[in-house]
Amino acid sequence: MITVEQAEKLILANAGDYGNEIISFDGSLGRVLAETIKSDRDLPPFNRVSMDGIAIKYEAFANGQRTFTIKATQAAGDTPIDIDTQNECVEIMTGAALPESLDTVVRYEDITIEDEKATVVLNELRKGQNLHLQGADRKKGDIVLTPGRLITPAVLNMLASVGEVEVRVKRKPRVVILSSGNELVEADKTPSPFQIRRSNNYMVRAVLDQLGIDAAMLHLPDEPTVIKQTLQQCLYNFDVLLLSGGISMGKFDYIPEVLNELRVEQIFHKVQQRPGKPFWFGKQAEGPVVFAFPGNPVATFMCVQRYFVPWLNKTLSVDERTSKYAVLDRDLKFEPELKYFLQVQLTSSAEGVLLAMPVEGNGSGDFANLADTDAFMELPLEKKEFKKGEVYKIWQFNIL
Amino acid sequence: MITVEQAEKLILANAGDYGNEIISFDGSLGRVLAETIKSDRDLPPFNRVSMDGIAIKYEAFANGQRTFTIKATQAAGDTPIDIDTQNECVEIMTGAALPESLDTVVRYEDITIEDEKATVVLNELRKGQNLHLQGADRKKGDIVLTPGRLITPAVLNMLASVGEVEVRVKRKPRVVILSSGNELVEADKTPSPFQIRRSNNYMVRAVLDQLGIDAAMLHLPDEPTVIKQTLQQCLYNFDVLLLSGGISMGKFDYIPEVLNELRVEQIFHKVQQRPGKPFWFGKQAEGPVVFAFPGNPVATFMCVQRYFVPWLNKTLSVDERTSKYAVLDRDLKFEPELKYFLQVQLTSSAEGVLLAMPVEGNGSGDFANLADTDAFMELPLEKKEFKKGEVYKIWQFNIL
Repeated sequence: MITVEQAEKLILANAGDYGNEIISFDGSLGRVLAETIKSDRDLPPFNRVSMDGIAIKYEAFANGQRTFTIKATQAAGDTPIDIDTQNECVEIMTGAALPESLDTVVRYEDITIEDEKATVVLNELRKGQNLHLQGADRKKGDIVLTPGRLITPAVLNMLASVGEVEVRVKRKPRVVILSSGNELVEADKTPSPFQIRRSNNYMVRAVLDQLGIDAAMLHLPDEPTVIKQTLQQCLYNFDVLLLSGGISMGKFDYIPEVLNELRVEQIFHKVQQRPGKPFWFGKQAEGPVVFAFPGNPVATFMCVQRYFVPWLNKTLSVDERTSKYAVLDRDLKFEPELKYFLQVQLTSSAEGVLLAMPVEGNGSGDFANLADTDAFMELPLEKKEFKKGEVYKIWQFNIL
Repeated sequence: MITVEQAEKLILANAGDYGNEIISFDGSLGRVLAETIKSDRDLPPFNRVSMDGIAIKYEAFANGQRTFTIKATQAAGDTPIDIDTQNECVEIMTGAALPESLDTVVRYEDITIEDEKATVVLNELRKGQNLHLQGADRKKGDIVLTPGRLITPAVLNMLASVGEVEVRVKRKPRVVILSSGNELVEADKTPSPFQIRRSNNYMVRAVLDQLGIDAAMLHLPDEPTVIKQTLQQCLYNFDVLLLSGGISMGKFDYIPEVLNELRVEQIFHKVQQRPGKPFWFGKQAEGPVVFAFPGNPVATFMCVQRYFVPWLNKTLSVDERTSKYAVLDRDLKFEPELKYFLQVQLTSSAEGVLLAMPVEGNGSGDFANLADTDAFMELPLEKKEFKKGEVYKIWQFNIL
């Protein structure tokens, strides 16, 4: 049985690369940039007026001039209007390009206007005030975004600003989610007293949905011929197979054997962890990867967060973020020789500390508390007692 | 000019309620539950076997019995098979319902099997081991989810498990995003040297997309008749108008006036904050609310996060989360009599502390750094100097 760290390493070593594609920027939210974006102009592209008011020549003000004849009004987007003499000004709006003959903007709040003349009511001005100078943020040709950047709303804003309406992004893997087991019935059916409803697959699809992946869903009965046929088709049509159930030591756990027959090489089976010990991972040479998770929902969910998401991030070359830590908020014992992924609810203390309160549960089969859980806290294998106040790594899936 | 707190209070006092609707559970990710969900059965619904192996009667083991005749094999989903005498066992799989005549499960790892007989190789067992007892997590009729619950993947899992395939959720408001200003050209056009590309609207739409709202987009030229006509139609067709630009003191900032003509009551104009001082908010009696944000992207983005998102959460009656705090990671001065919303990048320290590093910028007009920002830190109005190590509230929008 391998450790969590070994499992992670083997999974990341089998990250894929499904190439790039070019899409319209306004459908690119959540995608990963696969090109370098440079600014096509200075940002701001001109000396940008940042307050409504008048633009004057500072020298005139310094020489005692307080009242200026309004030569014209310039809106944002207008061609700049220059003055002829320093006792003139231009009434000018936020977002307008400062005329070359002017260098300072005085807000409406600091002037009075009468008979087409504006009078500055301040005794002091700063030369160049209320301006956002050309190129102050970025110069034309500067790199503004690099490959690996997750496209957030603010990144979209940047893409639009520099006119990158067609954008090269990483292509996403094609994923199929396979549930298995004859004990499962559809969610809209009434199970027999000894059956349960299928739910894992919906949960996994929802996680993928949040990751921007539209996954297919299939079900495998405990029937080796059907399992083989279905898996064969999936291996042909998808890049990633996410299975849940059918991989333990049970007599009807045909999946590892069938995968082997289909030339999917087992990379590991079983990880020193709870939940999720029976986790199986393999890959077909030059073909898809197969994550086969244990059937219980908490184990499936944890394995998706702890293994599949990092695999996907590496596959899409997403910029890495640093790890995240929280403070355990209650004493805890965990005896087995397994790394324990503790379900926790997170709160932010008034000291800026992230606190992790264990969500009570009855071991790995209990999914009733998963809905109240924000993260898994990864408790080290070497310890059995964990004290309130100790800090451990977390895998967060709900934003606070 | 009102404070941020006053603005927030007025906005929340104008939260709406657009009723409920019933949708299929598998399309409900990101929606807000509007009903109480009870479990239709015990969870687990039966004494669930949690390891593959054999089920025995503990009493027999306690009396010295080590070898048991395998009466039958029971898969998950099968009707339970009872034994006739205590020297029998049932070979049983994870997920199966424990037969009534049996009470303890021994893993394959702890037995040997030969000639249809299983021998336990341990000298000690715990009565009831490797079982997840009926109703241990929830009882039939227990409340498992309450109104206000955001539907996450784990909540979906619960809905599927209890067979709630049709689910009552809060109806979402219909939202339109309106950009304004003649200085703006489409993102795929080359602007004149004095124009810029439209980008705010795409950014706001992306934020709404993340919130599960599919918003419409329109543009308003600086032309009072067109503005009036368009706004009138929007007030008729939408529940929320999100405008950006056109609300400052500029000569072409027609929007507040036109809104007034259209009987949208101004609730406030201008907030003691940077960015976003000119923020305008109003409501038509019995009609839509109007958020009119300043035109610069950082101000728009901040106001969406700080005001629109809380308004939406209240409108949808989402369960409130506690506030979030982070530790300022560098000294900072901010002189104006405004509450400063500082752009910060977040990291989690090895002590579990959330650290907020200011992202350098040139004031409110600088959006080039917004893409590198994870949150706004809300710095109190009363102070001008902020020291590394001090803790302030944050408004986080990127998950780490």
